[in-house]
Amino acid sequence: MSTDTIPLDLTADPVTLTRQLVDIESVSRHEEQIADAVEQALRAVGHLTVTRRGHTVVARTDLGRAERVVIAGHIDTVPLNDNLPSRLEDGILHGLGSCDMKGGDAVLLHLAATLPEPNRDLTFILYEAEEIEDEFNGLRLLAQSDPDLMVADFAILMEPSGASVEAGCQGTIRVDVRTTGERAHAARSWKGVNAIHGAAEVLARLNAYEARRPVIDGLEYHEGLNAVFISGGVAGNVLPDECVVSVNHRFAPDRSEAEAEAFLREFFRGFDVVVRDSAPGALPGLGLPAAKEFVDAVGGQARPKFGWTDVSRFSVLGVPAVNFGPGDPSLAHKQEEHVPVEHIVRCERQLRAWLGGAP
Amino acid sequence: MSTDTIPLDLTADPVTLTRQLVDIESVSRHEEQIADAVEQALRAVGHLTVTRRGHTVVARTDLGRAERVVIAGHIDTVPLNDNLPSRLEDGILHGLGSCDMKGGDAVLLHLAATLPEPNRDLTFILYEAEEIEDEFNGLRLLAQSDPDLMVADFAILMEPSGASVEAGCQGTIRVDVRTTGERAHAARSWKGVNAIHGAAEVLARLNAYEARRPVIDGLEYHEGLNAVFISGGVAGNVLPDECVVSVNHRFAPDRSEAEAEAFLREFFRGFDVVVRDSAPGALPGLGLPAAKEFVDAVGGQARPKFGWTDVSRFSVLGVPAVNFGPGDPSLAHKQEEHVPVEHIVRCERQLRAWLGGAP
Repeated sequence: MSTDTIPLDLTADPVTLTRQLVDIESVSRHEEQIADAVEQALRAVGHLTVTRRGHTVVARTDLGRAERVVIAGHIDTVPLNDNLPSRLEDGILHGLGSCDMKGGDAVLLHLAATLPEPNRDLTFILYEAEEIEDEFNGLRLLAQSDPDLMVADFAILMEPSGASVEAGCQGTIRVDVRTTGERAHAARSWKGVNAIHGAAEVLARLNAYEARRPVIDGLEYHEGLNAVFISGGVAGNVLPDECVVSVNHRFAPDRSEAEAEAFLREFFRGFDVVVRDSAPGALPGLGLPAAKEFVDAVGGQARPKFGWTDVSRFSVLGVPAVNFGPGDPSLAHKQEEHVPVEHIVRCERQLRAWLGGAP
Repeated sequence: MSTDTIPLDLTADPVTLTRQLVDIESVSRHEEQIADAVEQALRAVGHLTVTRRGHTVVARTDLGRAERVVIAGHIDTVPLNDNLPSRLEDGILHGLGSCDMKGGDAVLLHLAATLPEPNRDLTFILYEAEEIEDEFNGLRLLAQSDPDLMVADFAILMEPSGASVEAGCQGTIRVDVRTTGERAHAARSWKGVNAIHGAAEVLARLNAYEARRPVIDGLEYHEGLNAVFISGGVAGNVLPDECVVSVNHRFAPDRSEAEAEAFLREFFRGFDVVVRDSAPGALPGLGLPAAKEFVDAVGGQARPKFGWTDVSRFSVLGVPAVNFGPGDPSLAHKQEEHVPVEHIVRCERQLRAWLGGAP
């Protein structure tokens, strides 16, 4: 940690703190400065034990409570897009990372500093590199290096979710569906087999797809199956001998990655199918007491999370997890991202109440 | 013309002459040396009037005959591919340009030099840049700068055609067929419209296409309709809002470019269709006396030409034209291109006889 680490006042109100965090530029792979600031501020809090791994910072209480809850947020952002510094206007805080997800981080940090005796033990995780390739993801690395720091009865990921609970998440798998043919000069096309024409059946099946919408713990998920890329062609006068349709499948968390792959292989039976990447979904786990209590405490309503988030990393470890953070998720990664002050205030107040803090 | 122009002996036998031409490297846009050699040799022939335009050389008789015939060949080649110098082995001449089309050029040059009194007036055209973009094509440029030099009753293009007559040529047109949609995150795909899925119908129509095979002057042509490229996709987690299928149509010479375009617009009705390039076909014109006599003179058999060639430039000018040259057309542009000596000898003998020369 350098001597010129930016001082953060974690006891300041979470909106001011959000603004301070937004103004520390922290594009993925450049989180050192913000991680230093966060680490220094957390180390100054007497009731927390702090661990740092790379640019991921973990702070824990150890009060011998019956339950432990992880509250986590990533500290990196997508690249700058002429959207710094922050700007507060009419109750809306604008700026890179305001929505995704420094509003959530600020709530987390403020609670860490101001709840010396929560009714549950807490593990706060502020992690690096969520917005880029999975291999760099700080939560993934932490689960490998220090799995004990991930242990909990329940986890809250402060990803933007409109300041209400979005439970679980759908899994995602991408496959390449390949058709092959035989090259020939386009002037004598009957001597070849056109691989692009062969992809007609792949697209026809996609058009005939009917999405499964399973209800899990009272939440209706909604699967999807979409071509996200298609490519083929050799030259303007040649019948192509290969066409590749890249297909993304979003699957509800009642299916494993293996089941999703089996579904795709069956769906595209007769074609060459290669899995390109895959990530499991996360069951909402709303039947579990810790989760149920949390949902009740923050208003009793939960929605299903359609997009994939890091909650699935907890799910894999057997820890029920939900998304609960300020900001509209559809603004994430947008140039004009922003967060309503009211979301930040509400999330902080509800979490504080659930954790037994004074209002 | 430089002083060190390579001397060509046009009276040498055409196989030796072919070999000499092959050994003068003349990749497109680098034809100066070969054009210099050809020009110098033709200027030395008393009965010819020579004109040069760029690296295109024209030599004419002017004997007041009732008919004029153009005999033409391009002097450029595709790029070197470790296939020079020439090699003569077991009656086969190997090397870059041997098939496409210096064998034909040698026959042409030998006839030009050794037929002082042909029974038809002759216009010999050796032109540059056939293997590259149309804008550089020497025959195209000549038709613009000196249309009178293209005037004839009949034209023979010495493109490789297995030493027999391939008449006319099919036209070619390429269109982009575009589907559009609406982007959405793949996790909430019901909020968007997938443009790649929309291309299913384009491919289905291509699969249902039935090729027209019109018989013209006794020759059966064979049309074709093929996707040659397909592309679409924004990101691995985004529903694509555009997909483009690039379609090549080969059309028999009983249809004009405008008719071919109208056919495509009707065929892809409901989709956005943009013409990318187009070139007309050429009618075989075998009903015309000059062409009929020629075919009879060289064996009585003609085949349809499926690929597009420069014969269509003559067709556009109202000059019936055929392809007739040594070499297997399917070897053109191949690393291992070669030409049978027997083809060269036969083409030369048949043309000489038709033009009233002594055997």
